Amino acid sequence: MESHALVAIVTLVALLVYFYMSLRVGRGRTKYGVAAPAVVGHPDFERDYRIQMNTLEWLPLFLVSLWLFAFAWNSDAVAAGVGAVWIVGRILYLTGYSKAAEARGPGFGIQALATGILLFGALGRIVWIAIQHHG
Amino acid sequence: MESHALVAIVTLVALLVYFYMSLRVGRGRTKYGVAAPAVVGHPDFERDYRIQMNTLEWLPLFLVSLWLFAFAWNSDAVAAGVGAVWIVGRILYLTGYSKAAEARGPGFGIQALATGILLFGALGRIVWIAIQHHG
Amino acid sequence: MESHALVAIVTLVALLVYFYMSLRVGRGRTKYGVAAPAVVGHPDFERDYRIQMNTLEWLPLFLVSLWLFAFAWNSDAVAAGVGAVWIVGRILYLTGYSKAAEARGPGFGIQALATGILLFGALGRIVWIAIQHHG
Repeated sequence: MESHALVAIVTLVALLVYFYMSLRVGRGRTKYGVAAPAVVGHPDFERDYRIQMNTLEWLPLFLVSLWLFAFAWNSDAVAAGVGAVWIVGRILYLTGYSKAAEARGPGFGIQALATGILLFGALGRIVWIAIQHHG
Repeated sequence: MESHALVAIVTLVALLVYFYMSLRVGRGRTKYGVAAPAVVGHPDFERDYRIQMNTLEWLPLFLVSLWLFAFAWNSDAVAAGVGAVWIVGRILYLTGYSKAAEARGPGFGIQALATGILLFGALGRIVWIAIQHHG
Repeated sequence: MESHALVAIVTLVALLVYFYMSLRVGRGRTKYGVAAPAVVGHPDFERDYRIQMNTLEWLPLFLVSLWLFAFAWNSDAVAAGVGAVWIVGRILYLTGYSKAAEARGPGFGIQALATGILLFGALGRIVWIAIQHHG
């Protein structure tokens, strides 16, 4: 755990940001009068719900790529740094999208870029390792 | 694997409970006449769908925190014990919510508490480890 | 990482297939005129969205079972092979469901079978290990 403490901290902070997004959905049920099990009925609620859902949709891409990148490159600081960029992108996505659907672009782009670096960085390195190993 | 067998078993049993929830949604399509790709159209189906979806929404929070807690505290039994509480909470959530949306509270609270212990327990310990390691 | 390079590659390729499904949803917003945050409004869009969502719903079952299977059986090639079957099933699910909801069955069945082998294969082996370890 010592060798990947920063990646673990980035993971848990990312989950806390996601958790905050789901708290906003729960609060929105009262605020906008959208009783469970409905997830539609008020545009502000629907944006809040999509903020959480889109982040959930990307969590497997991000978290799995983050850890495989860290293992493949035997890196803690670099993986954690790119992961921190993802968190910043997700916070901008939250603050933008909660105002208007059109304002979700920049934050979305930042987190997508960070995810892409981690995913393709991990894949490239692991394919290279596999070739070396079997070569 | 020997050193974290209990956490692995709790993980797989939690996934089986979640799998059962998704089976209920599939069965509900026939039972309540909600043809794919629709996910609305009958209140009983919509509650069944939200039981699965809400559990999916919490799975990354729970599973990642469970394993990081186990690694950070070098613990198998404690992490597995808290994880077992999460499973009990999710079963109560299922049985409650499937009757009425209002009855989903107690089970939801139990699993949220278990998740919180794992997430903040892991985060606190790992921050402490990182400080020791870099100190 | 060397010892599980194939499982890591299968994991990342599965995530790329899933990522392609979410790209199709993004593209479908323009193509079918379904503006965010709505996720309904055109049957072709709704099928594309369900293709992504159903795959997301199964990702925790698949990915967690895949790795626990690989660790429990100390296997890279077998786990990766079953994981590759899952990917084939998901591609058939995508190509079928995108034509008609009724055509989603075969691909769904293949990925469900692969997931079942990994989940129950991992669970059986880990329970056996735990019994040996505590026995």
